[in-house]
Amino acid sequence: MSGVVSASGRSSWEESRSGRNLRLRLAYEGTDFHGWQIQPSVRTVQGDLGAALARIAGEPVRVAGASRTDAGVHARAQVATVRVQSAIRCDDLVRALNAILRADVVVLSADEVPAEFHARFSALGKRYRYRVRNDTLREPWNRAHAWHVARPLDVLAMRAEASTLVGIHDFSAFQATGSHVASPVRDMRSVEVHQEGAEVTIVLVADGFLRHMVRNIVGTLVDVGLGHRPPGSTLAALSARDRRAAGPTAPAHGLWLEEVFYPPELKREATTR
Amino acid sequence: MSGVVSASGRSSWEESRSGRNLRLRLAYEGTDFHGWQIQPSVRTVQGDLGAALARIAGEPVRVAGASRTDAGVHARAQVATVRVQSAIRCDDLVRALNAILRADVVVLSADEVPAEFHARFSALGKRYRYRVRNDTLREPWNRAHAWHVARPLDVLAMRAEASTLVGIHDFSAFQATGSHVASPVRDMRSVEVHQEGAEVTIVLVADGFLRHMVRNIVGTLVDVGLGHRPPGSTLAALSARDRRAAGPTAPAHGLWLEEVFYPPELKREATTR
Repeated sequence: MSGVVSASGRSSWEESRSGRNLRLRLAYEGTDFHGWQIQPSVRTVQGDLGAALARIAGEPVRVAGASRTDAGVHARAQVATVRVQSAIRCDDLVRALNAILRADVVVLSADEVPAEFHARFSALGKRYRYRVRNDTLREPWNRAHAWHVARPLDVLAMRAEASTLVGIHDFSAFQATGSHVASPVRDMRSVEVHQEGAEVTIVLVADGFLRHMVRNIVGTLVDVGLGHRPPGSTLAALSARDRRAAGPTAPAHGLWLEEVFYPPELKREATTR
Repeated sequence: MSGVVSASGRSSWEESRSGRNLRLRLAYEGTDFHGWQIQPSVRTVQGDLGAALARIAGEPVRVAGASRTDAGVHARAQVATVRVQSAIRCDDLVRALNAILRADVVVLSADEVPAEFHARFSALGKRYRYRVRNDTLREPWNRAHAWHVARPLDVLAMRAEASTLVGIHDFSAFQATGSHVASPVRDMRSVEVHQEGAEVTIVLVADGFLRHMVRNIVGTLVDVGLGHRPPGSTLAALSARDRRAAGPTAPAHGLWLEEVFYPPELKREATTR
């Protein structure tokens, strides 16, 4: 397992190797959360989950998440790992958590994983989906789930631009200004642009994503789709490695974390469904 | 047209026959509204729409709605009529309204209709859809759009019960306690129970609905689906004309007003799409 653990952030995680290591899969609607990461005096997914776990396990619990989603971003399958001393059965834990957690978050499954496994550092990649509603009129019930773009998008142009991002690149141009990471290089496996009626969705798979990377890519592609940016400008921005060369940041509420990928030996999962 | 106007409530409507009579189709997400009907110091759809219209037309405007939906109930196509002196073009009015109204309500179309036409009194019938999510785990993003029922529903039993409600009946058993209407008799054209994966939807068409009638029917059918009420008990409740003989009231947030029907001579509509 050691091969799937990256170096960064490892020391703080190693502190608490004792107890059982549990992996949780969870889904949430990000609208009423100030994002994933725990912060004082605001509601966060990590905060709510940690408090519920502490109450059930009767011990302080530290929660590690695969993706630190921004405020307003949704998740169909976020992954978290927690270390607990409690002997609670995994399916009992799922039921107890769902009884405590509010309606905008749900734990889908729990299983016990090897001590070395970490939700974030063991992840091999992630898939995000960005939903755009491309129609003259807004749909009120999608207002927190998709970005409404009223003018017609040239989806073929967006698709051509999207393909230029695939591969191993320095994605500095699509990283939030002021971010500090060890390396801005990511392996973008695919960027697909789908259209079905008024729904335009952009599905991205990579070994990892920089801060705001999906939203900055989507904002750039939508600008191309609206004719505000010429063909080829996405690759030009990528090559320039300059945030100012790319398009605007798409709003958080259209973004969905869909899946986190792990090494195949961890695929077997004790689902509760 | 006079044949499609019912007697009740007509006098207050007749007061303001001057000016143009406009029909609006609108959609909304009911979560943040205290229902359709205007009330002091809370947000309502009628209140928001009336204020936006008054601002655009530069005159006080009274809004009549086809259905007075409860707090939390959504509409895909509510219909309203308004009388205005303003000469504004219908498509300009739609654009102006959508620029003023908040994101949880949208005007779909506007057209000018004969002076006799009234959103509520001219309606021949309505179609409502009630969404139930029938799955062990809740879906966070559907929490305001569907009723989550965790235990499995016997949809065939629900369908059999639903069919016993079709026809012209006294629906007193399914009317909110304390309601006062001229007649509790309604012509129920169809009650369909559909299942697609975890989604169970109940679609009802009638010439009119009593207060809470859809929600009380759905609460009764779901009780049958859970095995809490025996087969035949829905017809028995209907025959008893007693609210206590029927099941509980389903929550408002699963209910969607889908369509309001009018005489065919009014079908032609100046849509703005």
